[in-house]
Amino acid sequence: MAAMTPTTPHRCPTDDPTYRSGLACLQQVEATDSPAILGALANLAPDLAHLAVHFAYGQVCARPGLSLPTRQLLTVAMLAALGNARPQLKFHLAGALNVGCSSHELVELMLHLAVYAGFPAALNAVQAAQTVLAERTPAG
Amino acid sequence: MAAMTPTTPHRCPTDDPTYRSGLACLQQVEATDSPAILGALANLAPDLAHLAVHFAYGQVCARPGLSLPTRQLLTVAMLAALGNARPQLKFHLAGALNVGCSSHELVELMLHLAVYAGFPAALNAVQAAQTVLAERTPAG
Amino acid sequence: MAAMTPTTPHRCPTDDPTYRSGLACLQQVEATDSPAILGALANLAPDLAHLAVHFAYGQVCARPGLSLPTRQLLTVAMLAALGNARPQLKFHLAGALNVGCSSHELVELMLHLAVYAGFPAALNAVQAAQTVLAERTPAG
Amino acid sequence: MAAMTPTTPHRCPTDDPTYRSGLACLQQVEATDSPAILGALANLAPDLAHLAVHFAYGQVCARPGLSLPTRQLLTVAMLAALGNARPQLKFHLAGALNVGCSSHELVELMLHLAVYAGFPAALNAVQAAQTVLAERTPAG
Amino acid sequence: MAAMTPTTPHRCPTDDPTYRSGLACLQQVEATDSPAILGALANLAPDLAHLAVHFAYGQVCARPGLSLPTRQLLTVAMLAALGNARPQLKFHLAGALNVGCSSHELVELMLHLAVYAGFPAALNAVQAAQTVLAERTPAG
Amino acid sequence: MAAMTPTTPHRCPTDDPTYRSGLACLQQVEATDSPAILGALANLAPDLAHLAVHFAYGQVCARPGLSLPTRQLLTVAMLAALGNARPQLKFHLAGALNVGCSSHELVELMLHLAVYAGFPAALNAVQAAQTVLAERTPAG
Repeated sequence: MAAMTPTTPHRCPTDDPTYRSGLACLQQVEATDSPAILGALANLAPDLAHLAVHFAYGQVCARPGLSLPTRQLLTVAMLAALGNARPQLKFHLAGALNVGCSSHELVELMLHLAVYAGFPAALNAVQAAQTVLAERTPAG
Repeated sequence: MAAMTPTTPHRCPTDDPTYRSGLACLQQVEATDSPAILGALANLAPDLAHLAVHFAYGQVCARPGLSLPTRQLLTVAMLAALGNARPQLKFHLAGALNVGCSSHELVELMLHLAVYAGFPAALNAVQAAQTVLAERTPAG
Repeated sequence: MAAMTPTTPHRCPTDDPTYRSGLACLQQVEATDSPAILGALANLAPDLAHLAVHFAYGQVCARPGLSLPTRQLLTVAMLAALGNARPQLKFHLAGALNVGCSSHELVELMLHLAVYAGFPAALNAVQAAQTVLAERTPAG
Repeated sequence: MAAMTPTTPHRCPTDDPTYRSGLACLQQVEATDSPAILGALANLAPDLAHLAVHFAYGQVCARPGLSLPTRQLLTVAMLAALGNARPQLKFHLAGALNVGCSSHELVELMLHLAVYAGFPAALNAVQAAQTVLAERTPAG
Repeated sequence: MAAMTPTTPHRCPTDDPTYRSGLACLQQVEATDSPAILGALANLAPDLAHLAVHFAYGQVCARPGLSLPTRQLLTVAMLAALGNARPQLKFHLAGALNVGCSSHELVELMLHLAVYAGFPAALNAVQAAQTVLAERTPAG
Repeated sequence: MAAMTPTTPHRCPTDDPTYRSGLACLQQVEATDSPAILGALANLAPDLAHLAVHFAYGQVCARPGLSLPTRQLLTVAMLAALGNARPQLKFHLAGALNVGCSSHELVELMLHLAVYAGFPAALNAVQAAQTVLAERTPAG
C-alpha cells in the first residue's frame, strides 16, 4: 500500500456558513444541541463526522427544495428499502417524528414499501419503528 | 419438482371493489385508461398483473394515509435507492410528474439520495429522469 | 405532508376465503395455530399483518403451482441471497423444516448460494440455520 | 500497487475429475457441447472461466444433494432476488428450461418473489423470462 | 408536497480551493480537461455535478491518505460488489487504467470479487472491463 | 423435493497443494494456526468450510496477482459496500490489520465509501472498525 502521508484534509473550518447551517439542520433532526455523531466518531474518524455535517446536512439537507419532514420521509424510505442500515433507519425514524411526521405516516410508508421492496423489508422497518416508539414512551 | 396441478388461483374477480379502486389509482399514476402492465403480462403472467392491480394499487396505493404525490416521491426514493429496477424507476418518475410532483422535487430527491445511497445511485436516477423528461417533451 | 385522513383501508374481512386459506398456509409453515405476526403487529401495524396473511399467504403461497416445500426452499434462497433480512430468514428456515425439507437440503442450498451471492451470504445463512436448529433441539 | 509478478495460478488442469464433472454439468445446463463462457473469457480472464467450471459447476452444482432442476430453480430465485445480474438470470432461466423445469414453474416462482423482494424484482424477472422464451420459439 | 421555494443552494463557488483540487483530481481520473459530468448534468442537475466535484473529488478523493491508484481499485471493488451501477463501473475501470493500474490487477480484483459477491457480479465486471478495454484499443 | 442421495462430494483431500496453500493464506489473514471457520462449520456444514479454504483462499487469495494487504483492503471495500455481512466485515478488518494495513488506511477507505455507497454504509463500517480495534486493545 502507499505509505501514509500525514493527513491534512481539505475541510472547511467549523465556523463556515455551510457547516453551521448543517449543524443546525442536524440538531433539528436529532432534537438535541449535541448530535451524537460528533462524539461517536471523535476518536477514530472525526473527518467523517465533519463531512456528515458539512456535506450531508449543510450542502444537501439544508437546501430549500424539499421540506424537512418530506426529506425525513424520503430518508426513511431509502434506508428501509436498502434494508442494511438499521442504526441509521432508527435514527431517521426518530428524526422524522422530531420534525413533525406522524407515526401513522411512517407505518403507511412501510405498507407502501412492501410493494416495492417486499414484505421482509417492511416487517423489519416496522420492527425498528416499534423500538423507536417504545424508547420515546415513558414507561407507566 | 412437484408435478404441476392445474392452476385455479385464489384471485378476486376484476369487478370487485378493491380491484376497481386499484385500477383507478394505476390509471391516474400512468395517466392512461389502458395501463401497459395488463397487456405486457397478458400472455405469460396475467396473474401477476392482476396481483399488481389488486394488491399493489388496490390494497396499498389507494389507501388514504398518504397523498398520491407523496406516495410517488416515496416510490421513486425506494427504487432509486435499490438501484436495480430502472424500468420501474422510469415508470414512477413519469407517474410522479403525472400526479403533480415537479421535476425540481425529483432532482432534489436525487441530491438527497447521494447522501444515503451514494453518488452512483443518484447519477443513475438523474439519468433516468433525463430520459423520462425528454420523452415527454415534444421535439421542436 | 398531507393531513392524515382517517384510515378506512380496502381490506377484505378475515372471514373471506382468501384470508382463510392464507391463514391455513401460514399456520402450516409456522407449525402453530397462532401465527406470531398477528400479535407482533397488532398495535402498530395491524393492516400489514392482514396484508401478509391475505396477499403473501392467501393470494401467493396458497397457489397450487409449486409445492409448499419447494416454496420454502425458494423463500430461503431469496432471503439468503438478499442477506439483509435475518429474522425472516430464520422464520423460513424453520418453516422449511416444518413442511418437510431436510437440514441437508438447506445446507446444500447454502453451498449453492456461495456461487451466486458469495461466501459471506452463505456463511451467514449457515449461521442462521445453526441457530434455528439449536432452538429446535431439546437440550440433553 | 504491488508490482505484478507473473501469474502462475494454483489451478487444477482441465483433465482432473472435478473439472470434467463440472464441464459435464455446465453442458447439461446450457444444452451445448461448447459452453459460451469458455470463449467469452478466453482472452481477458481465462482463469475466471476455469474457476467457474471447476468450482461453481464441479465442486458445487455437480454435488448430489439437490437435483439439477431444483438447483436451477434456486439459482433463478437467487438471481431474481438480487436483481442486478440480468445476463446470468437469462442464462439460468434458459438452463432451468433445459433441465426440465416448466415455464409455469418459473412464472410461479416470480409471483412468489413479489412477496419477498417486491413487485419490481418480479416484473423484471418475468420480462427476462419473456425474452428467453421468445428466443427459444421459432418465429412462425 | 411542500411548495417549491426558489433554490439558493449553499454551494461553494467554483473558484474555491476545494472545488479546484476536486476538479484536478477528476481530470486526472478521467484523463481529460473537460470532465463529462459537468456537461451531462448542466441542464437538469447542475448542483449534483457541483457536489460531485466539490465533495466526492475535492473533499474525499483528493485526500492524501490513500494513493489515487489504490482509490480507483477500491472504487472498482465497491461498484462491482454493488453490481447495480454499470455506467460508473465502466467510468472507474477506465479511471483506474488512466492513473496507472494494470488490466491484470483489475481482472485479479474480479476473481477476488467472485469469492465475496459471487460469480455473477464477477462475470458482469469482467464484461464491463472488456467493453472499456475494447473502446481504448484503436481498431487495427 | 428430490430424495436425498448419500453425499459424496467432489472435494480435494486436505493434503492437496491448493488446500494447503489456502490454509496457509487463511492462517496469515486470521493470525492463528487454527482458523475459526473449521470448528464453527464442523458439525453442520464441513464441506462449506472445505470450499472456503480450497476455493476462496487456495484458488483465489493465494494467487500472486495482488498483494495480501491489497486483497484485504479490497475485501473490506466489497463487504462494506454490500453492507449486509457484518461478521465477515469485522473478520476482514482484523485480517487487514493482521497483514499490515493501518487503521488510518481503513478509515480513509470508509470516507471513500461514503461517496460510492452513501454515509450509512460508511458509518456502519467505521462502527465495525471501532469494535475490532477495541477488541485488539488490552484494557488499561
